[in-house]
Amino acid sequence: MLDFKLLKTDARTKARAGLVHTDHGTIKTPVFMPVGTRGSVKAVEQRELLEINASIILGNTYHLYQRHGVEILRKFGGLHSFMSWPRPILTDSGGFQILSLSDLRKLSEEGVEFRSHIDGSRHFFTPEKIIEVERTIGSDIMMVLDECPPYPSERDYVSKSVELTHNWAMRCKESFSASKPFYNFNQFLFAIVQGGVYPDLREKSARDLVAADFDGYAIGGLAVGEPAEEMYRIANFVTDILPEDKPRYLMGVGTPANLLEAVERGVDMFDCVLPPRNGRNSQVFTSTGKLNVRNAGYADDEASLDSECDCYACKNYSRGYIRHLFSVDEIFGLQLASLHNLRFFISLMEQTRLAILNDRFVEFKTETLTRMNSLKKEEI
Amino acid sequence: MLDFKLLKTDARTKARAGLVHTDHGTIKTPVFMPVGTRGSVKAVEQRELLEINASIILGNTYHLYQRHGVEILRKFGGLHSFMSWPRPILTDSGGFQILSLSDLRKLSEEGVEFRSHIDGSRHFFTPEKIIEVERTIGSDIMMVLDECPPYPSERDYVSKSVELTHNWAMRCKESFSASKPFYNFNQFLFAIVQGGVYPDLREKSARDLVAADFDGYAIGGLAVGEPAEEMYRIANFVTDILPEDKPRYLMGVGTPANLLEAVERGVDMFDCVLPPRNGRNSQVFTSTGKLNVRNAGYADDEASLDSECDCYACKNYSRGYIRHLFSVDEIFGLQLASLHNLRFFISLMEQTRLAILNDRFVEFKTETLTRMNSLKKEEI
Repeated sequence: MLDFKLLKTDARTKARAGLVHTDHGTIKTPVFMPVGTRGSVKAVEQRELLEINASIILGNTYHLYQRHGVEILRKFGGLHSFMSWPRPILTDSGGFQILSLSDLRKLSEEGVEFRSHIDGSRHFFTPEKIIEVERTIGSDIMMVLDECPPYPSERDYVSKSVELTHNWAMRCKESFSASKPFYNFNQFLFAIVQGGVYPDLREKSARDLVAADFDGYAIGGLAVGEPAEEMYRIANFVTDILPEDKPRYLMGVGTPANLLEAVERGVDMFDCVLPPRNGRNSQVFTSTGKLNVRNAGYADDEASLDSECDCYACKNYSRGYIRHLFSVDEIFGLQLASLHNLRFFISLMEQTRLAILNDRFVEFKTETLTRMNSLKKEEI
Repeated sequence: MLDFKLLKTDARTKARAGLVHTDHGTIKTPVFMPVGTRGSVKAVEQRELLEINASIILGNTYHLYQRHGVEILRKFGGLHSFMSWPRPILTDSGGFQILSLSDLRKLSEEGVEFRSHIDGSRHFFTPEKIIEVERTIGSDIMMVLDECPPYPSERDYVSKSVELTHNWAMRCKESFSASKPFYNFNQFLFAIVQGGVYPDLREKSARDLVAADFDGYAIGGLAVGEPAEEMYRIANFVTDILPEDKPRYLMGVGTPANLLEAVERGVDMFDCVLPPRNGRNSQVFTSTGKLNVRNAGYADDEASLDSECDCYACKNYSRGYIRHLFSVDEIFGLQLASLHNLRFFISLMEQTRLAILNDRFVEFKTETLTRMNSLKKEEI
């Protein structure tokens, strides 16, 4: 069973600070996890991820399976060794990616059949198969196979989907328990609570999965287009059902404000492609708001991206230089912006954690969100 | 006058080892200079350039002038400060780039009028203007404005071109002598020997420029399509005329073999876009030859790109992983290949220098070229 230590729960909110111990190191929660879908966090080096204090990164089971197969990963001794990453890895199952293949896939109780988006080849993912693939990848935290309904979806559809997701989760757990890691470290399995925006379905999903005693619980099916208030409401509802002594992971979320609101509602772990993706598009997160560093107004700006940031980009380069790099299409521009944005998200969770431990989470959240709105008029 | 110390000339060839002192540090020659046309060596960070021991990099006067103008560079205190690069910078004048604009430019004795390749705006570069721009960039080594005739060119054309290049060089020198650096460090001026593949024109160009006593001498107009043997013959001919006590720079050259052949003929400095450009295309230089790391045959190869290389890519990642990165279009792949290729070229010149100092340049060159051919059958 995963060793999760809950250090503190905020007296005024549900915000928590904890420690997740894995054989590849300890994760301090709340935590932001950079996404390295195909074994690389886009345009950021592994040593830079260490430098900005990324304590865990994501990989994607579907994408790693597609290219270039698990045999190669097994030969290399797993993904940690393949990509030279010493800290924990979490793999999502790829259910979300497969299901978005729409006409390339066929869903059944047994599993999901799909045609590769690369070469059209046919594959069949079952819960058992996913566990086998994640064993071969060697992620520290494995996610179950789930179905993530789009937003909006009819209640009936979501209800059946919750049942399917539950059955798959139980088969994943069985398969997980019956198998051993391929490499010399422990792996853990998280379940995924589904149920769309229907509280009763969310409740059923959560209660049934909690009863089965997983290592941790993710909240899936959010950040798929619903209003932010809906996301917060559902997250809040679900964390009330989840056990205190297990980590909680809100999948695919989100903006800095989303993260703080979800922490307030008892979430511990986050992942999102936003920081590097925005970085590649010259959109930069700062403590006073978002800015588009490509704007001509920054051409002679000698300030760093964010005067409060300690990343390599902010300690060495000006907005003017980074604006120049984007303007002349130099790759180094997006390297710096991606690195900075990731550091911004990681640092935001570090500061949040300290605030929780120091009994000032509410004040921290208010101050942070207020300051982040100060640049609003310059918005991208 | 530039402080160049010739430490040793090989007893059996014209190969030399020396030291070029600038206010931004000492350059050990022979040296390979990475090209950072627009204030960035593509996909490689400044701290990585330090790490792979780049002792000097290039910038391009034309491109920096085009985007985004010298006023910004002046505001930032010059290119060193703009791009946070603490070591020497050499700027080529951009003559080569302007002249390749063909129908966008008009050449006269006075200078060259051109329309911007970006926005069509009209500009006039004279020798005096180039010096002013290079003063504003603040490069340690400034190149004169020259005309670089294409290959092949008629003797008559080249003859007139040599005259023009000489007149421009003299005006550059006058303007250089009459002006002072904008920033608190010294700048130096190199002349460029032209004359195509015509020995008598090369001789005239070289003798006249030597008489004018520049800080160093470049050999321009080579590596423009002529056979390698022709390049070696002309380089050899020109270095016989150039003074012993000034550094010699062969512009835009070249492959590892080109470098070794030119060192043998008395050249000290090189620049070329080949290492990062090839790297971006997954072509990797190694001590046993070139390989295309994207080839499927490397998919499960656990070896590093080059077992003898000390770069970050080779110390941490396998060919299999780097092949995967290229295959799934991850930017990190080209970052690693660019970094490695640059380190390969820099290291080649470091080893060459040691060989010269240890009286074994000829043996080193033969061994190195023989080993580099061993992978030939796998050639790209």
